[in-house]
Amino acid sequence: MSASNNRSRGSSIDDIAGNGLLNRRVLLGQGIAMAGAISAGGTVTGAAAEPLRDKPWSLEFGSTLPAVQTPSPFEKGVVRSLSNPTGEFRNSHARTPHHLLGGTVTPNGLHFSINHSGVPDIDPAQHKLVIHGMVRQPLEFTLDTLSRYPLVTRMAFVECAGNSAPMFSSEPMQLTAQAIHGLVSNAEWSGVSLSTLLDEAGIDPRATWLIAEGADAQFLDRSVPVKKAYDDALIAIYQNGERVMPGNGYPMRLLLPGYQGNMNVKYVRRIKAIDQPAMSYFESKTYSQILPGGKTWRFHFLMEVKSFITYPSFGHALNGPGFYAISGVAYSGNGRVAKVMVSADGGNSWGEAALRAPIQDKAFTRFVMPWRWDGTPAILQSRAWDEAGNVQPLRTQFVAARGQTIQPLTNSLIFPNQHFNSITSWAIDPNGQIKHVYV
Amino acid sequence: MSASNNRSRGSSIDDIAGNGLLNRRVLLGQGIAMAGAISAGGTVTGAAAEPLRDKPWSLEFGSTLPAVQTPSPFEKGVVRSLSNPTGEFRNSHARTPHHLLGGTVTPNGLHFSINHSGVPDIDPAQHKLVIHGMVRQPLEFTLDTLSRYPLVTRMAFVECAGNSAPMFSSEPMQLTAQAIHGLVSNAEWSGVSLSTLLDEAGIDPRATWLIAEGADAQFLDRSVPVKKAYDDALIAIYQNGERVMPGNGYPMRLLLPGYQGNMNVKYVRRIKAIDQPAMSYFESKTYSQILPGGKTWRFHFLMEVKSFITYPSFGHALNGPGFYAISGVAYSGNGRVAKVMVSADGGNSWGEAALRAPIQDKAFTRFVMPWRWDGTPAILQSRAWDEAGNVQPLRTQFVAARGQTIQPLTNSLIFPNQHFNSITSWAIDPNGQIKHVYV
Repeated sequence: MSASNNRSRGSSIDDIAGNGLLNRRVLLGQGIAMAGAISAGGTVTGAAAEPLRDKPWSLEFGSTLPAVQTPSPFEKGVVRSLSNPTGEFRNSHARTPHHLLGGTVTPNGLHFSINHSGVPDIDPAQHKLVIHGMVRQPLEFTLDTLSRYPLVTRMAFVECAGNSAPMFSSEPMQLTAQAIHGLVSNAEWSGVSLSTLLDEAGIDPRATWLIAEGADAQFLDRSVPVKKAYDDALIAIYQNGERVMPGNGYPMRLLLPGYQGNMNVKYVRRIKAIDQPAMSYFESKTYSQILPGGKTWRFHFLMEVKSFITYPSFGHALNGPGFYAISGVAYSGNGRVAKVMVSADGGNSWGEAALRAPIQDKAFTRFVMPWRWDGTPAILQSRAWDEAGNVQPLRTQFVAARGQTIQPLTNSLIFPNQHFNSITSWAIDPNGQIKHVYV
Repeated sequence: MSASNNRSRGSSIDDIAGNGLLNRRVLLGQGIAMAGAISAGGTVTGAAAEPLRDKPWSLEFGSTLPAVQTPSPFEKGVVRSLSNPTGEFRNSHARTPHHLLGGTVTPNGLHFSINHSGVPDIDPAQHKLVIHGMVRQPLEFTLDTLSRYPLVTRMAFVECAGNSAPMFSSEPMQLTAQAIHGLVSNAEWSGVSLSTLLDEAGIDPRATWLIAEGADAQFLDRSVPVKKAYDDALIAIYQNGERVMPGNGYPMRLLLPGYQGNMNVKYVRRIKAIDQPAMSYFESKTYSQILPGGKTWRFHFLMEVKSFITYPSFGHALNGPGFYAISGVAYSGNGRVAKVMVSADGGNSWGEAALRAPIQDKAFTRFVMPWRWDGTPAILQSRAWDEAGNVQPLRTQFVAARGQTIQPLTNSLIFPNQHFNSITSWAIDPNGQIKHVYV
């Protein structure tokens, strides 16, 4: 008897971990049977007889093609969630609805954004980037001149250091993947290598840091190691093929793949070469990582390996036992994702998920794990490894090292700590309802 | 003397082909000098003294973050061009503005679309895909059931067989890359392998064709070889991370990577397994390729290897002699792009362009070629090879094999032939003005 025959009968030889996780190479064409069977006469078997009637939209001429198309009105719930929808004079967060998306690209309309002084309306013909400080010759660049350089094109995630901050709560908050993890997104960026521009200005070998400053009303500025500039930093001018979005830095932004979002200075207008960090507001206050013992990590820039399940997750409901594909995103500021393991029994057993190619450096990788749910309680988790050998820590490990906060501290979803990269757990009850839990 | 020193003095050792094409590995940080030099006091050298003053947008709180962000108002010209903007009762084309885009992803708002009976407004909860005909058990799938399958995620271009039809004109038409080549776009699609669904229905081994039918008012239908379905066909439900756009087939479309756009049936509602092609309207009329001798190619599905330069191109103007990066897109329905050669002297000499990674199967690859323009007339061309060994034909070869049409035949940009994949030539005059020419 062949393995294939076994599979078609739903034999357990496909199980690779507890609670119904299936081999990712399972022949999915056999035995899933989620579709409705219909009779030769065109009616759904077992259901009230419904002939294959034309729907109204098949019987009338449709709407006119617009110059810029937008999603279907039926998708009106697929939007960013806003922390400051009325534009009060404070910072604003717009979170990506990961629980409603597929694939790896975050469409531009839904890319997350945090702005501390609103979104500036910049005239690209007047905006200039100046490179100065410890350089042989200060230079200024317009969008037009940057457009004449050979552009680098690459996928990259950008993640706020405060993404997933609700996970620092000592009690699991009942929130969607959007509310918890919505401050990370993934896009194709095209821009000029910062190293090219620094070479042109003739950067002094004694310059070890840059201070990058934005043209927003806060003049947001951050210190960046020159080493990172020569590794893979870009001045990005396109985002998913079109000009950078206003909330993401139009007309140009610093892109530091894998480094915390705040350092990827938007609306970048000045880059000054210096020989020590500038100790700007954000790096000396917000993004100094406070550890449980009271010590602080300064210059903790890199976003660590991480993954989370987007489907099924809080906000969804399972429609009865049967086959489902568990799916989510994984990424690491250290490079490529090497492996994602998934558990359906709260971490007692793990199976290796399929990764969708191409697996790219410091970019989202979509993982998929076939699962046959038997209708009993389940706890879904994912855990990622990167090519540098780093692994997403268990929650107990992570909390011991980085701390947690007694809830409720705030309603703002902002917690006084950063760089959460532990595991997210979604508990399924026998009714298919989903809760956020800690394991 | 090192090569690097030579480069910094603009020596010709970097030249790899005529008329200023530069080695793609040229150290771009040296000797490009497009930026304005500024004095230590913050004024642009040689220009009217302009201190680094704050612009108005840096001095006021910006606008409120929207739930779905849109491009800057300064980018309002970056839109699709419409062949039927008032929605007359005929077909409509919306073309992608390639001359204004960078990278490889076509953002969803700007993905091309052709609709023959307008855009249907489909309720995804009521739409069903039925697989029937020569199958063991007819099945029907809703968007919800498809969402439970392990989704495949991949980049793919979709190209109308009539894309670039203005190139069949015997005289070069003065049109942008959008007007000429705007009926191809490139996106990340996520969906269920069609082979999985056919396996579930139990397709009869004697079925060699499928007839796929859309839910638009035209019931657009096309015959598809079963072989292609088992190769890489998808029922796509996500486009660049979000649900498929209304103009591109919401809530689900057939995706046949590398096959002519019309076959990638949008709003797909029925797939019937049959043992011969159905000879539907489009395959028996429009998409039968008429050759100069009067013979016709039937079932000429695959979109051949192709490239075109997007920058600089008609509609742009060069701002004086100096350094530019020539850039464009290449793709092939046969697989990956292997090589792109660029000429600046109308095909007398060619240099190999840099290809931006990752190079993906049946998807756009962005190519870049450094160029030092000396201000004399130049003719820019690109020519692509694919991994199967196919090469983009020269115009003389192509026209001899496929024919051309005496202009002016029509104002509609629609010519009575298909599958144009020859070379596009942009002529630069000493003033930096750009024309479309034939070489």
